[in-house]
Amino acid sequence: MAIRVNEGLVLLSDTRTNAGMDNIARFRKTFTYEVPGERAIALMCSGNLSITQEVKATLSHAIKREKSDPEVETILNCDTMHRVAQIVGDAMASVQKRYRSTIEMQGAGADANILIAGQRKGGKARLYMIYSAGNFIEATADTPFFQIGEHKYGKPILDRIVKPETTLEEAAKAACVSMDSTLRSNLSVGMPLDLTVIERDSYTFRVRRRIEADDVEFGRISQSWGAALRRGFEDLPSVLD
Amino acid sequence: MAIRVNEGLVLLSDTRTNAGMDNIARFRKTFTYEVPGERAIALMCSGNLSITQEVKATLSHAIKREKSDPEVETILNCDTMHRVAQIVGDAMASVQKRYRSTIEMQGAGADANILIAGQRKGGKARLYMIYSAGNFIEATADTPFFQIGEHKYGKPILDRIVKPETTLEEAAKAACVSMDSTLRSNLSVGMPLDLTVIERDSYTFRVRRRIEADDVEFGRISQSWGAALRRGFEDLPSVLD
Repeated sequence: MAIRVNEGLVLLSDTRTNAGMDNIARFRKTFTYEVPGERAIALMCSGNLSITQEVKATLSHAIKREKSDPEVETILNCDTMHRVAQIVGDAMASVQKRYRSTIEMQGAGADANILIAGQRKGGKARLYMIYSAGNFIEATADTPFFQIGEHKYGKPILDRIVKPETTLEEAAKAACVSMDSTLRSNLSVGMPLDLTVIERDSYTFRVRRRIEADDVEFGRISQSWGAALRRGFEDLPSVLD
Repeated sequence: MAIRVNEGLVLLSDTRTNAGMDNIARFRKTFTYEVPGERAIALMCSGNLSITQEVKATLSHAIKREKSDPEVETILNCDTMHRVAQIVGDAMASVQKRYRSTIEMQGAGADANILIAGQRKGGKARLYMIYSAGNFIEATADTPFFQIGEHKYGKPILDRIVKPETTLEEAAKAACVSMDSTLRSNLSVGMPLDLTVIERDSYTFRVRRRIEADDVEFGRISQSWGAALRRGFEDLPSVLD
């Protein structure tokens, strides 16, 4: 999930992938790109892993090629965050064109989603969701967060809490309790997690942290939230009488 | 959702159906059958409405026919709750056989699920989930609740709270807050709700209540829960520092 509030951007991903229940693996789903002091961009992936890895490879190849040929446009030198989203979307469309029909002939799915969050100097902090076709939408004040992958279990708490005025700290907490609910209810989501925070107008990363299964801070959040839910539940008025 | 605890059974359903986002209607999804003092059975439906209505019609026709022909086996005169589940499963299989292929030729889905909860004198309180093929599973101490239809949003709170030792009152509260989360996050779920409670060894219904959108008790539960979540959220330890 990625959240855009007035203070900046918060991203949280898990690391579990599966090709069927009996084929579970661990892959990082958050990737960060930075020109310190000029731009900071985080990218998160869901869906067909071969597709999203190829999209990422396309972006990285361009960044490498640009070193010998400054004419090459990349997500690190392009003009706007909107153009970053277009470049990622174009890469997605091109990878889908190459593989989708053959993947589907095998009976597998080629769908994939990418979240792009970041800010460049002179622009605003932006959050985009890229679809399989390469088109994309941007988060707004009305809908300040996006989720990709397994999103339903963790959505109610985000719906309740996240608004543009939510602080970065609160947004990070909301991301953690939302993920905590999803982890409890769905085996296709698993630790460790990757937390990324970009403060507005900093053009760098305030947090790029891997949260392992035995992480003390995340454990405290999870326990505190569980206790609050139990207390809140005990205090509910009666339904049956 | 339907919950089986040591004290009995709790069922809660919404009333929203849709054939696409632009075609929303209201249909009761919980139906009760009773031989007072001998058995009380509640049935809840999800999925293709024409299929579940036809299954229900099949059950009702048998109950009518039995009045002139006592040989006819029905869910009200059969030997066990397990046999009730078989009768409902057989009706489901027969309706699917009649309509499924033609429904699918139109590009629509014929999948449907039915929850059966109840108790007859001499037996235990039972809870079954019937699949489209007519096969079924029973809730156990390890998994004391079933959800059909839009289940993901409301599952985390049930996972946290519902155990066999949970009281009927607590189970009813858990059902309400689970539904409250789902109502907030998904437009395909909507008020009013139908709450049904069967106390163990009573062979009748303790509660058969329609909860309208302006229901005072449900409103209090929803407000109290929202406040508890906000308080619990404010009390969370810091993540970012």
